[in-house]
Amino acid sequence: MAKPAYVAVDWGTSSFRLWLVGDDGGVLAERRSGEGMTTAATAGFASVLAGHLDAVSAPADLPVIVCGMAGAKQGWVEAGYLDVPSPLSAIPSAAVKVPGTAADIRILPGLARRDTARPDVMRGEETQLLGAADGLQGTSLVCMPGTHSKWVEVADGSVTRFSTYMTGELFDTIGKHTILRHSIADAQAFDGTSTAFKHAVTDAIRNPALATNLLFGVRSGMLLHGLAATDAKARLSGILIGLEIAGALDEAPPGTPVTLVASGALGALYESALDVAGVEPVVIDADTAVRAGLAIAARTIWPN
Amino acid sequence: MAKPAYVAVDWGTSSFRLWLVGDDGGVLAERRSGEGMTTAATAGFASVLAGHLDAVSAPADLPVIVCGMAGAKQGWVEAGYLDVPSPLSAIPSAAVKVPGTAADIRILPGLARRDTARPDVMRGEETQLLGAADGLQGTSLVCMPGTHSKWVEVADGSVTRFSTYMTGELFDTIGKHTILRHSIADAQAFDGTSTAFKHAVTDAIRNPALATNLLFGVRSGMLLHGLAATDAKARLSGILIGLEIAGALDEAPPGTPVTLVASGALGALYESALDVAGVEPVVIDADTAVRAGLAIAARTIWPN
Repeated sequence: MAKPAYVAVDWGTSSFRLWLVGDDGGVLAERRSGEGMTTAATAGFASVLAGHLDAVSAPADLPVIVCGMAGAKQGWVEAGYLDVPSPLSAIPSAAVKVPGTAADIRILPGLARRDTARPDVMRGEETQLLGAADGLQGTSLVCMPGTHSKWVEVADGSVTRFSTYMTGELFDTIGKHTILRHSIADAQAFDGTSTAFKHAVTDAIRNPALATNLLFGVRSGMLLHGLAATDAKARLSGILIGLEIAGALDEAPPGTPVTLVASGALGALYESALDVAGVEPVVIDADTAVRAGLAIAARTIWPN
Repeated sequence: MAKPAYVAVDWGTSSFRLWLVGDDGGVLAERRSGEGMTTAATAGFASVLAGHLDAVSAPADLPVIVCGMAGAKQGWVEAGYLDVPSPLSAIPSAAVKVPGTAADIRILPGLARRDTARPDVMRGEETQLLGAADGLQGTSLVCMPGTHSKWVEVADGSVTRFSTYMTGELFDTIGKHTILRHSIADAQAFDGTSTAFKHAVTDAIRNPALATNLLFGVRSGMLLHGLAATDAKARLSGILIGLEIAGALDEAPPGTPVTLVASGALGALYESALDVAGVEPVVIDADTAVRAGLAIAARTIWPN
């Protein structure tokens, strides 16, 4: 049977995930909780981690690789940002050691684009990227959708640039706090097969400058044409995702391959939107990507 | 001395304004209060109006012309929408009479663009437009900035189309409810001379598809380059106004004259943003425009 080799932790703002990984690369045990940075900042990062290590009976000297908000300024130990352009292989080397602990605990850095005209940062997604971009040849775009969607250009093993789009947070905020909340209040679930969603993606890609007019059109469509709540919500989503895709594809040469790192409903929505844009992405599950990225980092830092 | 000829009322969502107008067109008395539709829906529209008419000693049979939310479905008496394309002169004719009142009280309709691909509505701004577009020759764009900015194409006395941009509401909502609130929390006042504002307008006009990436750049700019709170807020404003202007100008032939209907700080901001876009608008004060529109409506409905 495999022996424990290291512990991998994805420590987000509001979620904590831990895997006990064997020397054959398999997962021996897994933990998930809501003790993200927000909770851990009060409870103490060390004690939250210790509790989960106990729960999986991890040996006291087992090394721990951590990515995500534990490395933020407001986190456990600040792990700073690695500036791009940068080889992906520089990410593990820039990990910061947590001082004063029995085990060797390392926190991976974020990435920064310091370009004054287009400043950008990511933290956590660099580890998904490390896993997802492993083996990519030539130049690719890697899309990691979410609250703050990331589009990364990877060329021959290096991150050349990346851009964050506030899509998920805007979808949430606009749906809750603007006049559109009345139009979507009674919405049911929708998915990427929604015609309203796909039309909205098309509209936003065709004329991104009309984005905030298209948003108001969700309300006008309800008032004048009885647009149903579910279609209204699908349209809100489609406008914002379409706008993001328009911007991201606009920055890359036509035909650049796209890798989509996403899971579940959100992944299906982006696949549909990319299809509208004429892009057929390689899809990698987001959980798989982050575990692969943590494994690459662990192998690099502790080669034996 | 001038005798009272009619009463003009601009009844918004959260504000009430009334002018007692003399037979020479001059204002004999004025009232302003917070009794907008939201308040009046509870207190009763008739009694709110009666109170203000008493306060200016208006004769009981004096006609009253009303624009704004009093004509909404949730208002006093629904005044519906006039469909565009439509001559401006059709707006007064479509006014709805309030039933069962001693005086002749008429509420002006809103405008609707029923185009299924680009549905749009306005209510209240049609009266500003009526006043601002009086005498415009050929084809013009009329911009009425605000919570929901309106851009109207007027051609030879007719409204040919219009588009609403959610600029003001998005500025407010994004600044209050997204991660950007941290970046702008300590902002001071800024105006159209702000370099950060003008650069943001330029950035949004140059590449509207990057809008939600430029928004996230406000946060990254603070994290990586110490972007100051006031500049961050000016950038948030500039991105949204620039996006609006990009969309609006994109829909009209280059060189189409622009009339800006706005007052105070917001007017100055839009003048600056339009200057960045190479447009020098004719500026009409928003209060003057709505009073002029109500006067045109009154003259049309009660010619003697």
